[in-house]
Amino acid sequence: MSGNSYGKLFTVTSFGESHGPAIGCIVDGCPPGLPLCEEDLQADLDRRKPGTSRHTTQRREADLVQILSGVFEGKTTGTPIALIIQNTDQRSKDYSKIMDRFRPGHADYTYTKKYGFRDYRGGGRSSARETAMRVAAGAIAKKYLKAQHNVEIRAYLSQLGPVCIEKLDWNQVEQNPFFCPDAEKVPELEQYMDALRKEGNSVGARINVVATNIPVGLGEPIFDRLDADIAHAMMSINAAKGVEIGAGFDCVDQKGTEHRDEMTPEGFLSNHAGGILGGISSGQDILASVAFKPTSSLRLLGRSVNLAGEPVEVITEGRHDPCVGIRATPIVEAMLALVLMDHLLRHRAQNGDVECATPDIPASP
Amino acid sequence: MSGNSYGKLFTVTSFGESHGPAIGCIVDGCPPGLPLCEEDLQADLDRRKPGTSRHTTQRREADLVQILSGVFEGKTTGTPIALIIQNTDQRSKDYSKIMDRFRPGHADYTYTKKYGFRDYRGGGRSSARETAMRVAAGAIAKKYLKAQHNVEIRAYLSQLGPVCIEKLDWNQVEQNPFFCPDAEKVPELEQYMDALRKEGNSVGARINVVATNIPVGLGEPIFDRLDADIAHAMMSINAAKGVEIGAGFDCVDQKGTEHRDEMTPEGFLSNHAGGILGGISSGQDILASVAFKPTSSLRLLGRSVNLAGEPVEVITEGRHDPCVGIRATPIVEAMLALVLMDHLLRHRAQNGDVECATPDIPASP
Amino acid sequence: MSGNSYGKLFTVTSFGESHGPAIGCIVDGCPPGLPLCEEDLQADLDRRKPGTSRHTTQRREADLVQILSGVFEGKTTGTPIALIIQNTDQRSKDYSKIMDRFRPGHADYTYTKKYGFRDYRGGGRSSARETAMRVAAGAIAKKYLKAQHNVEIRAYLSQLGPVCIEKLDWNQVEQNPFFCPDAEKVPELEQYMDALRKEGNSVGARINVVATNIPVGLGEPIFDRLDADIAHAMMSINAAKGVEIGAGFDCVDQKGTEHRDEMTPEGFLSNHAGGILGGISSGQDILASVAFKPTSSLRLLGRSVNLAGEPVEVITEGRHDPCVGIRATPIVEAMLALVLMDHLLRHRAQNGDVECATPDIPASP
Amino acid sequence: MSGNSYGKLFTVTSFGESHGPAIGCIVDGCPPGLPLCEEDLQADLDRRKPGTSRHTTQRREADLVQILSGVFEGKTTGTPIALIIQNTDQRSKDYSKIMDRFRPGHADYTYTKKYGFRDYRGGGRSSARETAMRVAAGAIAKKYLKAQHNVEIRAYLSQLGPVCIEKLDWNQVEQNPFFCPDAEKVPELEQYMDALRKEGNSVGARINVVATNIPVGLGEPIFDRLDADIAHAMMSINAAKGVEIGAGFDCVDQKGTEHRDEMTPEGFLSNHAGGILGGISSGQDILASVAFKPTSSLRLLGRSVNLAGEPVEVITEGRHDPCVGIRATPIVEAMLALVLMDHLLRHRAQNGDVECATPDIPASP
Repeated sequence: MSGNSYGKLFTVTSFGESHGPAIGCIVDGCPPGLPLCEEDLQADLDRRKPGTSRHTTQRREADLVQILSGVFEGKTTGTPIALIIQNTDQRSKDYSKIMDRFRPGHADYTYTKKYGFRDYRGGGRSSARETAMRVAAGAIAKKYLKAQHNVEIRAYLSQLGPVCIEKLDWNQVEQNPFFCPDAEKVPELEQYMDALRKEGNSVGARINVVATNIPVGLGEPIFDRLDADIAHAMMSINAAKGVEIGAGFDCVDQKGTEHRDEMTPEGFLSNHAGGILGGISSGQDILASVAFKPTSSLRLLGRSVNLAGEPVEVITEGRHDPCVGIRATPIVEAMLALVLMDHLLRHRAQNGDVECATPDIPASP
Repeated sequence: MSGNSYGKLFTVTSFGESHGPAIGCIVDGCPPGLPLCEEDLQADLDRRKPGTSRHTTQRREADLVQILSGVFEGKTTGTPIALIIQNTDQRSKDYSKIMDRFRPGHADYTYTKKYGFRDYRGGGRSSARETAMRVAAGAIAKKYLKAQHNVEIRAYLSQLGPVCIEKLDWNQVEQNPFFCPDAEKVPELEQYMDALRKEGNSVGARINVVATNIPVGLGEPIFDRLDADIAHAMMSINAAKGVEIGAGFDCVDQKGTEHRDEMTPEGFLSNHAGGILGGISSGQDILASVAFKPTSSLRLLGRSVNLAGEPVEVITEGRHDPCVGIRATPIVEAMLALVLMDHLLRHRAQNGDVECATPDIPASP
Repeated sequence: MSGNSYGKLFTVTSFGESHGPAIGCIVDGCPPGLPLCEEDLQADLDRRKPGTSRHTTQRREADLVQILSGVFEGKTTGTPIALIIQNTDQRSKDYSKIMDRFRPGHADYTYTKKYGFRDYRGGGRSSARETAMRVAAGAIAKKYLKAQHNVEIRAYLSQLGPVCIEKLDWNQVEQNPFFCPDAEKVPELEQYMDALRKEGNSVGARINVVATNIPVGLGEPIFDRLDADIAHAMMSINAAKGVEIGAGFDCVDQKGTEHRDEMTPEGFLSNHAGGILGGISSGQDILASVAFKPTSSLRLLGRSVNLAGEPVEVITEGRHDPCVGIRATPIVEAMLALVLMDHLLRHRAQNGDVECATPDIPASP
Repeated sequence: MSGNSYGKLFTVTSFGESHGPAIGCIVDGCPPGLPLCEEDLQADLDRRKPGTSRHTTQRREADLVQILSGVFEGKTTGTPIALIIQNTDQRSKDYSKIMDRFRPGHADYTYTKKYGFRDYRGGGRSSARETAMRVAAGAIAKKYLKAQHNVEIRAYLSQLGPVCIEKLDWNQVEQNPFFCPDAEKVPELEQYMDALRKEGNSVGARINVVATNIPVGLGEPIFDRLDADIAHAMMSINAAKGVEIGAGFDCVDQKGTEHRDEMTPEGFLSNHAGGILGGISSGQDILASVAFKPTSSLRLLGRSVNLAGEPVEVITEGRHDPCVGIRATPIVEAMLALVLMDHLLRHRAQNGDVECATPDIPASP
């Protein structure tokens, strides 16, 4: 109820601050019998890990995950899977410069007002460090979805500041530090990021995610529609400011004849809906897009106030991502996996096993 | 768990189909002592009601709400408030033309696959008729928020198809059938809608919502951030395809120096965050925007399949909104009220009473 | 969260006061395709109905239930099933004698302190009238459990004041107004109750419940064990003061060799566990027992205080059950049905379909 | 949803198996600002710890708890408090004797049927080892309740096999290994337990719990009554088979005039209700009683079956409690603390701050 749990049947409950001894989570509701080991989780954690290129924060965390429970003889048992990552890079930093003041655009001010004290250590619970646990938990969901239904969930950078991606080549996504699917844009991205870093500024980004081989029927009418839960999950990622499903905001200017996805015996003729009709998956690919704001951790002075309400200037030294959207890519995938996994179990509870892509209505255009 | 409930502490559980005897909901968790009567709910219901102008569906429903419980001597008792609206306009329509086929862009197909049968009566549970109960329940939340904290929640049409609103004059919003805050755009909207109706087509829209006098500290870290819950709530409205908070997708192309809202002793200098930092309300106005798709209920032939998977053509006769976004305006307000009310109670449970706009950091720019 | 909902996947949310226009509930999570009509619910409602013999309250309520949603062409749709019962016997009673004072042993005092006002109309929300909705909702669960797994849930009076039942003959239970399975005890019960009524006093009772053909594996480890949820459900019934599973309090004085239920290839050799091991159903019959207190609505003067804290005497006139335990029988069955139904769906979500009585380990001794 | 979480607003989510690397839990919802350190939890853990006398299991676990998050500068932060205990005594035991067979009276059989595999390592998740985390989490609740409202929660052994306690002297409870409040009964208990141990048998017990200084108004009507939640919490403890509130099963044979607790301006005249009326705390002491079965881990041969369904004999060697009820004492206290803490927050959410013992109606007789 305090917001640290996600999911109703496949539940992730997370803990930990950026500067405490460890972060971790409990994944509850995983069906028994899924082969699982730490390597299954580490792969995605390494994709999110800081310090893998000059374009992300240079904070160095090994982010080695340990499974503490819920796996016996290499398979999940159906009982809670506890995951933990020790915090190894808690530099005994000098906080004296910021401990009495609020960094603009950060959660410093709101956390202080909500909880009545100032945890000045690098954001404490509000640090994006917690997203590591989302990735680890999401990897379990991904593995189950893939094993049971061949579901594939992949995200990519579709825009970074002014640079728009024009080509979607899945083979390229893991070949560059930007999760960029358009090889031709990579040099432009590198240039832009180098200049940005030199400037001490930051920039926003847009991440798209696609899930394929989705069973028909996932999503619960009215309040827990699949798209509503995706919006929730995506907007819960640090720095997210917008979410679209399918055509998204483009549909404001679409006519009905253009937007509606007509059907033929060979399948849908388009996918403006993003794979969801009436809040329920149609079997088409699920398409979503997320906007990430530019981080406010800048090496450029900003006006703010201190705890006494007096005007101060704030500068954020240290190691920060100039574009937090980049490393959000595996997080977006993880959150979509958590949503789908939860809905798979919810569907199964009430309706029994899901039906996969139907022969009469092929899933994709 | 089947998706018919919204909220964790202030909970709305909804029931009813468009063609059953009644729709209704149970509102649970309302604090005792709030003066409440049916008129309090009817005002917003009337704003959502079909048939109030030629630009919305001509289906005629009185939408008279009755309070069945939870109010004693004119005040809420703290026990569940049951609301009911009788369905008065269930025309014994001839469904023979569509009962064996899926309307493209509708939930017909996904509901049939999920539940294993075809409820052909105008959408059944997937009909937007259920949104009447959101509006009624939201009116209770609105009243409480206003009474306790002077919170004001108001939405307006900001774009309809190609017509963009340029001026925000709150006094205009209730003066035209479009909830348009820009009087000069009303004739253009009328023309556009008349042409659209004649054509038998539909169009999308964008609704913006603003909430003022928000207490600082609402929202729960990590998964139940205030913005995540707003995204969830908005995307759960029929036809919603996108949600933005504050700068939304514009921040993809913003730099950090531009986006971060600097603070001075006189208050924040901008509101790109949309009133939410780290998932917690800052006391600034909450700003959100929702994209609504064009309805797929068109008088223009569309290709589809029937229950046997054979190709058919479908046309939707009858009374439908050419722009469902218009009547979404009070629904958007209601959903934001439900989110805020729920978070107010959640905050109160753990942290005690909320702090209102603080003297040291004024809430608005 | 305000306590008006039961169940996590098969959820009942109830509303209504004893003296409002109606009581009702929403049953959410029922699988689609279950044949259901009002008669299915009415049978159990009639068993609980007041005024069927001189031994229960003479309040006359037809208790006719209406289904408002969730059923289409005679089958459940998978969407919420709303049930409503109009309150027909709201005598415009003279409350002046008790409206300023607390009836001892009633919820008057605690409700007033909790909610800050006094609803003096016959208990309001704390009236046992709400249990009608439990019976109606439970009847849906019963029907599903019977249809899918042949589960049978039956309760009976096992003790009333000093009168202990000695014989369990299921055929007798519905043949007398006490749900007494021992025909020879019926005259004794009648005499006892007649004397009690004349005296203006009340008495406690014990109700036993037995569920047969239980699938193996229902119940979730640690906090949501099947026995824990049964205890919760039973103790939530008005006037319940104790719950036992299997041997119950007798096991305080049992030795391990006596209590443990040994197993042979032909099945368990005893059932002290009451069909539940480690919180999970074993396939044996589920056995539980509930103690109901004597109602405090007496025609005999009791000392109390009024709203001003001054000493007063209170007498409860009107129509009350001298032994509320009697009519609790169908409620106990209903609550067990709700528990089992919920756990059936929970099991199915994580573990897939349940396994029924296994050939290798027969379920009963 | 898989049963590993307790509480709705003050939530404990537990993980870990008896033979994995660690057990632990996440406590979510604790208000910020509570002074908290590991010693606060260790005291109760030491009371539950095995091996403190010859009358409990000789398994030796240091049970040292570590706080991993949620505390900053000695105070709770309002974010999740993660607790962990390393498993230090995982003897590499020879399981070959029991790994293919079900111990009678244990969860072996039901877990195997539910999850589809046999975790033969000392019970795995079904081991009572998990109750250590209940005690640790309960200690946080206890501390908050004591600090805020001076609530005191204390349990004691009231019966062990045939030995009934006759005197309640709180000063004695911590002076003997039985949590026995009657000093004169201690020699009898020692003798009985020595004989039992020699015999290789086990016995049941009854634990009573008393909570004082309870605010008026805790508990939510209908399904989440305070007594229902206490019953749930108590019955979720390993080996619990019965729960009573106040007079409990004695009220089956009580008359209304005897049971109802009359009120005077000086307070209630008795407490048969156990401090709860209509499911809501009255301010009187809360009284509950729990029956614990004799453990089935015996050094006396029992009949059972193996995984192939063939008849086998089973003996449980190793270190087991001959009376698990004894060490249940701090667990019972912890569970009551969790229930009260959760309801305190729930009350606060809807009704604002609780009212403590009222001047007009003193809380105790």
